[in-house]
Amino acid sequence: MKRVKLTVAYDGTNYCSWQVQANGVSIESELNRHLSELLEEEIHVIGASRTDAGVHALGNVCVFDTHAQMPAGKISYAMNTRLPADIRIQDSREVDRDFHPRRRPTRKTYEYRICNRRMQDPCSRLYSFFYHWDLDVEKMQRGASYLIGPHDFTSFCTNRAETTDHVRTIYALDVSRGLAGREKDMITVTVCGDGFLYNMVRIIVGTLLKIGSGRIRPEEMEKILSAKDRRCAGDTAPPQGLTLLEIEYPEETERFRRRALRT
Amino acid sequence: MKRVKLTVAYDGTNYCSWQVQANGVSIESELNRHLSELLEEEIHVIGASRTDAGVHALGNVCVFDTHAQMPAGKISYAMNTRLPADIRIQDSREVDRDFHPRRRPTRKTYEYRICNRRMQDPCSRLYSFFYHWDLDVEKMQRGASYLIGPHDFTSFCTNRAETTDHVRTIYALDVSRGLAGREKDMITVTVCGDGFLYNMVRIIVGTLLKIGSGRIRPEEMEKILSAKDRRCAGDTAPPQGLTLLEIEYPEETERFRRRALRT
Repeated sequence: MKRVKLTVAYDGTNYCSWQVQANGVSIESELNRHLSELLEEEIHVIGASRTDAGVHALGNVCVFDTHAQMPAGKISYAMNTRLPADIRIQDSREVDRDFHPRRRPTRKTYEYRICNRRMQDPCSRLYSFFYHWDLDVEKMQRGASYLIGPHDFTSFCTNRAETTDHVRTIYALDVSRGLAGREKDMITVTVCGDGFLYNMVRIIVGTLLKIGSGRIRPEEMEKILSAKDRRCAGDTAPPQGLTLLEIEYPEETERFRRRALRT
Repeated sequence: MKRVKLTVAYDGTNYCSWQVQANGVSIESELNRHLSELLEEEIHVIGASRTDAGVHALGNVCVFDTHAQMPAGKISYAMNTRLPADIRIQDSREVDRDFHPRRRPTRKTYEYRICNRRMQDPCSRLYSFFYHWDLDVEKMQRGASYLIGPHDFTSFCTNRAETTDHVRTIYALDVSRGLAGREKDMITVTVCGDGFLYNMVRIIVGTLLKIGSGRIRPEEMEKILSAKDRRCAGDTAPPQGLTLLEIEYPEETERFRRRALRT
């Protein structure tokens, strides 16, 4: 018996969410089905992050236990010949038997893309949020700076009973416009933290859009944060702009330590 | 009666091509159908560039004649509420009655995107060509430089009887890798010229891939060009990486004159 960790990329457009649900196909159910067929035993993955319908990932993580003889490193390649084109395993490796993807400290990095131009670019529609009005990236960056550090993010969280501790730490939060070619129409919000509440990134982006479009001043971000009231923040930005880029585990990667030293 | 020019963006994934064909839905047929409904008369657009199945556009051009009273500038907005999400009119304006989009000098700019990483990114699969092996961008740029200027591009053209003149002028041909974030995995070939033969951009990219992967030296591009033989060049790169970015008409835009001066 060994425990295998998968790094999974997917286009969330055609899935109901990460998690197995009664209606609709989920990423988790596709992985379970194809792993079970490949390894000829019933496999149930444990996911690190339960992304919503329409949200994408380049580096979500899950683990599973198997008796199969196949070397862990080969499972990625074998799975990619079986999976539908909108899911691709990026990496597979053996980890300690007690490695649980949700019960240890992590750094997660999300990216939210805003297509900011006069008319929608159809080729961006599934991977960004189209926003027609002018956005001031410098103001958005200024507003974002108030969120860096450990804070109670109650204002940026869709109420769900299961979580009572709303303190999270944001290590970095950058807003930038692409430099060249078509990327000049794209504003990317990149956020790295030790964890995120339900809808937290999308509500942060919705609030940054209010700042960028001039409806509120950047300084108001501080008041929104301290109000600890969801009604003070902006709308929840739509799912298709969001991509889970990376989940880092301290014991898994030297990069974690090196990045932490720099912060 | 007036002539209206449309600048059209589309995601070519689900279309058989630009052109009306017996089987499958084309961009042209969608435009004809929705324009006819909107303007309440039978409309037939004349397209500038007949892109292939799977090829995308940000700025293809077409014209049509109409008796309708609706101001030309409003047609883009009215059409975008009717068209499917994968086609969006970027601009609509009245032009001279004798303006024909294929019978005058133009500058066309195409972009070809190559997703160059170890594993496929599912969110790029419809808008780039996934290439697993290492690519040397500097060598590709060196190979590309031989194609700039007026040349006989017979080696870079799929044989079709209709064209006998294979001389075209390439004004600029750039190969570059993205600078930041996920764009670092993306190599973009941008090419601007006075016109392109059938499959010319895709064959140029296929040949640049042979150079970038080290199968042939950059200097061999000169021999391939002078051979005037399709068999000497590389494979035709797949359609989904290709996007028609812009078609410029000298009389239509001051930019044309300014750019021409710089070249």
